[in-house]
Amino acid sequence: MAIELEDILKGKYPAKEHARRVAQWIEENGGDGKGIVYLEGQKEKMIEDNDGPVPFRQRRPFFYLTGCQLADCYFTYDIAEDKSTLFIPPIDPEDVIWSGLPVMPEEAMKKYDVDAVLPSTEVAPMLASKENASKTVYAMSGDNQVSDKITFMSFSTKNFSLLRPAVETTRVIKDDFEIAMLRHANRISTVAHIALMKAAATSSNEREMEALFLKSCMERGLHEQAYHPIMASGTAAATLHYVHNDRPMNSDTGKLNLLVDAGAEYRCYAADITRTFPISGSFSKESRQIYNLVLRMQKECIERLKAGVLWDSVHEHAHRVAIAGLLDLGILKGDAEEIFKARTSVAFFPHGLGHYLGMDTHDTGGNPNYADEDKMFRYLRVRGKLPAGSVITVEPGVYFCRFIIEPYLEDPEQKRYIDEKVLERYWEVGGVRIEDDVLVTETGYEDLTDTPKEPEELEKIVKGE
Amino acid sequence: MAIELEDILKGKYPAKEHARRVAQWIEENGGDGKGIVYLEGQKEKMIEDNDGPVPFRQRRPFFYLTGCQLADCYFTYDIAEDKSTLFIPPIDPEDVIWSGLPVMPEEAMKKYDVDAVLPSTEVAPMLASKENASKTVYAMSGDNQVSDKITFMSFSTKNFSLLRPAVETTRVIKDDFEIAMLRHANRISTVAHIALMKAAATSSNEREMEALFLKSCMERGLHEQAYHPIMASGTAAATLHYVHNDRPMNSDTGKLNLLVDAGAEYRCYAADITRTFPISGSFSKESRQIYNLVLRMQKECIERLKAGVLWDSVHEHAHRVAIAGLLDLGILKGDAEEIFKARTSVAFFPHGLGHYLGMDTHDTGGNPNYADEDKMFRYLRVRGKLPAGSVITVEPGVYFCRFIIEPYLEDPEQKRYIDEKVLERYWEVGGVRIEDDVLVTETGYEDLTDTPKEPEELEKIVKGE
Repeated sequence: MAIELEDILKGKYPAKEHARRVAQWIEENGGDGKGIVYLEGQKEKMIEDNDGPVPFRQRRPFFYLTGCQLADCYFTYDIAEDKSTLFIPPIDPEDVIWSGLPVMPEEAMKKYDVDAVLPSTEVAPMLASKENASKTVYAMSGDNQVSDKITFMSFSTKNFSLLRPAVETTRVIKDDFEIAMLRHANRISTVAHIALMKAAATSSNEREMEALFLKSCMERGLHEQAYHPIMASGTAAATLHYVHNDRPMNSDTGKLNLLVDAGAEYRCYAADITRTFPISGSFSKESRQIYNLVLRMQKECIERLKAGVLWDSVHEHAHRVAIAGLLDLGILKGDAEEIFKARTSVAFFPHGLGHYLGMDTHDTGGNPNYADEDKMFRYLRVRGKLPAGSVITVEPGVYFCRFIIEPYLEDPEQKRYIDEKVLERYWEVGGVRIEDDVLVTETGYEDLTDTPKEPEELEKIVKGE
Repeated sequence: MAIELEDILKGKYPAKEHARRVAQWIEENGGDGKGIVYLEGQKEKMIEDNDGPVPFRQRRPFFYLTGCQLADCYFTYDIAEDKSTLFIPPIDPEDVIWSGLPVMPEEAMKKYDVDAVLPSTEVAPMLASKENASKTVYAMSGDNQVSDKITFMSFSTKNFSLLRPAVETTRVIKDDFEIAMLRHANRISTVAHIALMKAAATSSNEREMEALFLKSCMERGLHEQAYHPIMASGTAAATLHYVHNDRPMNSDTGKLNLLVDAGAEYRCYAADITRTFPISGSFSKESRQIYNLVLRMQKECIERLKAGVLWDSVHEHAHRVAIAGLLDLGILKGDAEEIFKARTSVAFFPHGLGHYLGMDTHDTGGNPNYADEDKMFRYLRVRGKLPAGSVITVEPGVYFCRFIIEPYLEDPEQKRYIDEKVLERYWEVGGVRIEDDVLVTETGYEDLTDTPKEPEELEKIVKGE
């Protein structure tokens, strides 16, 4: 059973359980049973040549083991003693004058699921203590994860290789608390998506859409976006990483769509939702055809989800549905199986079907192979079987991008499968993508995204009916 | 005469003139007449442990000499030849597929005020060329301003000390183009401030105010805020660096103010505006008294502005007005001159009167002395005389912050000047700050901020009259 939002807000983020799971992974993968996990949280940093702070983003492994979004903290977890300690900044009298009181240890004990809270001035003495001298410390290397101030001189063994894969692997399977957080991020993001659908027809520029999305999330308490939102009108939707969001939205022709790929973050947990809808309230004939095809790709793929399913094969299925649909429309021609083997559909659906979702939008543990020589799988961010408890985005798309398709039209092995004359009618569709966040369960799946996506429903919302 | 906004949008940011002024400063301060200025722009960086980019913020010295907000660029200016060159990223075929075409050299030549545009692959060969071997290179050290990839092996002299002060000093005096940009940032920020005044009475949380401010700026094309906005209701306004912006706004008592310190950025140029107004639409008696006092402090200080005025003495004047006003209200007691000498007014007005404004909110060239033993001047970010063409914020405030005032009440040298009983009535005022951005001219000043600030006007706007 899913935890309801009210329960989340009452309870604590299950950091201790995460620490135990991480420790278990370490023990199962070479740990020696007498270790201490050590992590440093993100530091407050200043903008280069400026006295303002860089927007704070907690390190994800640190949040996973503490639930704490404060800057300049430290964390230890003694595996044998099953004891976690959070170290928070001590009071700085000068800072209190300007910024007020910081979070105090008693308050932190009530708020976070840890066994002890100490001032961060205690972390070095604690690590250097005699009783810890015989222990192994598990820490992360690289990216300044361990500051120079902290030495591990007193530890008999220092292990910088196990902690990162332990956390990254453990994060794949979400617990009920995390799922409820992802659902809340989805709920608020859905409200924002619907606000855009209602406002699109009277908006004059993509930037108004971005502004409205941010406002809708922020005024409901979700201050951060999980990623840079994409507000792509018309042919801009053919650019997969379109981030300018500054084109005029001219719906005079009645043919333009808006592709909105945007999701907010709730206490470090991301939503990632894409919707494509007609700015005028009515899909053009070609847009509707492509929309229906992408929706079919998405629904059939979601229906296949269940613990143990091979994600690679779900991705393949999306291509097979795409090929069948593009053959129906006459954009592709020839034998479906031959086209599949020639990878021609990659011209229209060049990216992966989806990725794990969690504290990172592209969450850890997917084991992609970006060097894969098979271009159908090169950009697939998750490879292998999906476990129960994983959350994955299902985001098929069909795009008409000249930079991508034109090389296919010049390649004798490919161009025979594409009808250029029919294709000509579809360039102005730009691109359609539909993306939901889906929880994989033992028996099937649960779609965490309930943003409207039926084409008739979208048209009604845009028209204000 | 000020340039109008339409002219800005038609013209180019005067980067070449800035390069000449910087070179002139270098020559006047030890340059050898055969140098090359070399700058690296900000690189695109990834979020730690994540594949998303960090929000891009161009290095200010780089924008000053190029007007260019693209990532991964380089710049050279040959002083003797008066020739500037911008190096932009070459086309990456892989990237075009995902992100579309980048800015091309011909387009960059039309857009930026430089003499030549080359791909960034040319910067190293150019620096290493024989003709440059006898020249002096002027570059910036520290903060990774010069990447390891670029070596200066072929230069006879490398100077890392002159360029930074040259740019930081030159930036103090704004040209008409920069002033027009600052004015535009002010105009849009004013629209956003007024939107908040209109919405405050029906808003339930400070975060709605922040969301509305960002939306109002963003939908008008100003995507970035110049600094983290402060939305401080009630006593939160007593915390000078309040940034939580998450308190419920309860105007039931009819006594709470909202202090809004927020400004947007227009092409790297900042607005910095503070307004304080009653959430209910009517100031309480005590709030109105403090508001009138701060407004008097601000107006009298602005009236004193003129090229050559000593900023320290304007700051002193603000304290003298504050002391007179607090004596009138009975919060202070005793002799005004004695109180001034005892620095008692610093308890109520602890920060500096203002700072230079430009590409940084706290702009360069102010020569502060944060180690000053005189606490009245320790936080004053500009010391010395103001030149014509400088833009400075004038932002006096009076605050009732227990962390700051209570030590004064315990100090025998200070407490005799403060009437605790009268003070008791003012704690709930929180704090009042009023801040405009003002251009200093030969004959006086020009206030770039026309956000309403007369108390009757504020009350009318909040009430919707």
